[in-house]
Amino acid sequence: MSALNPKRTVAELKELRALTGDENGAQRVAFTKTWLTACAWLREKVKGMPLEIHSDAAGNMWFTLAGASPKCLLIGGHIDSVPNGGWLDGSLNVMAGVEILRRINAQYNGKPPVTVRLVNWADEEGARFGKSLFGSSACSGNLNLEEARVLKDKDDIKLPDALREVGIDFEKVKDSGVELKNAAAYLELHIEQGPVLLDLDLPLGAVLGTFGVERHAITFHGQAAHSGSTPMNRRKDAFLAAAHMSPEIYRIATRSGNGVCTIGSCTTKPGIVTSVVEDCCITLDQRHLNPAALATMLNEAKTASEKFAREGNVTVAWERLWQIAPRPFNDELIGLCDEAIRETYGKSHRLPSGPLHDAAEVAAAGVPTVMMFVQSLHGISHNKIEDTREEHLELCVTAFDKLAEKTMTWINKK
Amino acid sequence: MSALNPKRTVAELKELRALTGDENGAQRVAFTKTWLTACAWLREKVKGMPLEIHSDAAGNMWFTLAGASPKCLLIGGHIDSVPNGGWLDGSLNVMAGVEILRRINAQYNGKPPVTVRLVNWADEEGARFGKSLFGSSACSGNLNLEEARVLKDKDDIKLPDALREVGIDFEKVKDSGVELKNAAAYLELHIEQGPVLLDLDLPLGAVLGTFGVERHAITFHGQAAHSGSTPMNRRKDAFLAAAHMSPEIYRIATRSGNGVCTIGSCTTKPGIVTSVVEDCCITLDQRHLNPAALATMLNEAKTASEKFAREGNVTVAWERLWQIAPRPFNDELIGLCDEAIRETYGKSHRLPSGPLHDAAEVAAAGVPTVMMFVQSLHGISHNKIEDTREEHLELCVTAFDKLAEKTMTWINKK
Repeated sequence: MSALNPKRTVAELKELRALTGDENGAQRVAFTKTWLTACAWLREKVKGMPLEIHSDAAGNMWFTLAGASPKCLLIGGHIDSVPNGGWLDGSLNVMAGVEILRRINAQYNGKPPVTVRLVNWADEEGARFGKSLFGSSACSGNLNLEEARVLKDKDDIKLPDALREVGIDFEKVKDSGVELKNAAAYLELHIEQGPVLLDLDLPLGAVLGTFGVERHAITFHGQAAHSGSTPMNRRKDAFLAAAHMSPEIYRIATRSGNGVCTIGSCTTKPGIVTSVVEDCCITLDQRHLNPAALATMLNEAKTASEKFAREGNVTVAWERLWQIAPRPFNDELIGLCDEAIRETYGKSHRLPSGPLHDAAEVAAAGVPTVMMFVQSLHGISHNKIEDTREEHLELCVTAFDKLAEKTMTWINKK
Repeated sequence: MSALNPKRTVAELKELRALTGDENGAQRVAFTKTWLTACAWLREKVKGMPLEIHSDAAGNMWFTLAGASPKCLLIGGHIDSVPNGGWLDGSLNVMAGVEILRRINAQYNGKPPVTVRLVNWADEEGARFGKSLFGSSACSGNLNLEEARVLKDKDDIKLPDALREVGIDFEKVKDSGVELKNAAAYLELHIEQGPVLLDLDLPLGAVLGTFGVERHAITFHGQAAHSGSTPMNRRKDAFLAAAHMSPEIYRIATRSGNGVCTIGSCTTKPGIVTSVVEDCCITLDQRHLNPAALATMLNEAKTASEKFAREGNVTVAWERLWQIAPRPFNDELIGLCDEAIRETYGKSHRLPSGPLHDAAEVAAAGVPTVMMFVQSLHGISHNKIEDTREEHLELCVTAFDKLAEKTMTWINKK
């Protein structure tokens, strides 16, 4: 074993792509044959290092390099992908972790100052059963067993039955929580999946945490009326009230600092060209890193919707679809991540993560956590055109390795 | 025969409702058995008057009371209804016409100063084949035979075949145009089907004409992007641009004077809660009585859509769905209509018609035309709850009869 070799990481990612992808992209959907192929390939890749390897009760794979201290540095990723996915989402994290294990193993002759563990989380994407972060939420204890027990895939196969096929007992998946014993820090590298670093022309960023999310359906109810015979000032136009919400959420998001708000869907009833809209339903997705700011964004949207409804002589009703609390990362680790990036490239940037990641689950379990982002081209993921410049991939492996080293020192000092 | 008896008109409308309606409303869909039943009932109702009665080449029924002059006063209505329709839409016009024929026949001993003709237009509603104003547009010459020839009902029966069933040769329907020879004026009474007179607390109004209509589909094209990872200032949000159109069309309509604009439908793609909207399609229906004002409304909407698209970094495309020119009514007849209303009730109001009526076809054929509206309760029609107060029904028969008398005098003076 020699020093860190980021070019090898890029080569291995291409090898994995050739092995488990096709003309439509990556096909490593969790618990499928292709995923098992990828997992077996991964085991081959770490051969030669003195690692203890096992899968936990939830199907997460752990690669442990025992150190002088039982306190653990965790490095995480997920080799599973969405169907027709990209070559980097999840597997970059895993393969960078493998390369760092190699460097640490070589540098410390198989005995680093703290224990170092790489985890390949099971079913981060939730592509088959619609429940993302499966393995990490089982491990963190946040998984809702009642909800997960009844999940079915499109062939009507239940999650517990699919797990049994790969040797996992659904009822025991939370036993995986034991793996977090002695966890002193968790690091995760990921492609940004957004355009922020691309816009700033920066390769790398330190992630502040994952956004909390409030997701609601908002239905305005007015009155259908003939488009020809109903004067404008007599209308109860549900679309007008809903339409006012669109520029309003931009104002709300801007006021919030770094929050985002999205109206992703709009449906109208009766929805015909000759009638004023009686019912208009929009979906609203709001995200913020700060719980109070998220609550403010939600309140402002509710207040605005009631104002627009009142002014338009219609009514409004809200229905919560989903919510999750913000998961801020560890301040000291964010600082170390920033340092590692600056030492590698000269300039860093701090940004929140819109998408959720396994890191959010680990942070929620109380383990000091940070993520590093590398620039995404096109700001696109979950698609075969997902890409990152190779020079940036190499930079991120280098910076992430520096962060791992700094974190080992940090763990030992605590 | 005695003097005008408006109460008889109300009683006859109730009789027709009992004969041709059910618990869901009126069922006199054109060219059906129930419609033929209604037409036969109508023939019974005019028995005893010296009328020449025939159906023309398009299925319109003409009841002619020959006068001293061959110049004709036409009074029109339609006994057909939509499925589950109201008891007044169309049949009020016909039965008021019958009552006026009785009064004129009695007053002039079977020989009025001008010829008076009642026409029961065939398939005003277009409920079965989706082509409204069938009989009147055949008669006016505006019917597009190529388009009409291929129309099918929901059972895949073609319009020409359905017409053959009731003895009409589709290829000859425009021969009905001969009926307009000697037509000197056309009068039509109708329920308002809107809330204007109700709001003004007035029973009757003189109609200025039927609106011209511009009907378009407007598609904004932006870019789908992750709702969590895409900063607000980076978005190409098709829904935002479309939403700006909604308050804008209210401003455009208000500036136009008495025009109306309606966005009746909005669809979004991909239309999921976690993505910025890539494609948003709205329908726009614009109506005005003045051709220049209608053109201005359309231009203003186009300009606004391009501005919103530019500001939102999206594109916009327009597709015309349908259009029809405004059909203004005859100024002198509008004046006579106003007079007749004021003599009956004391107060009148002039208003445009949003919905189209057979009168629009007759006006387009060059016959001086006017309509009288009577107040609608709820502003609703095409529904079994369509209704008008009985005192208002009686008032409208009286006022419409005065208008018929004034128009005979007007015809004779010309």
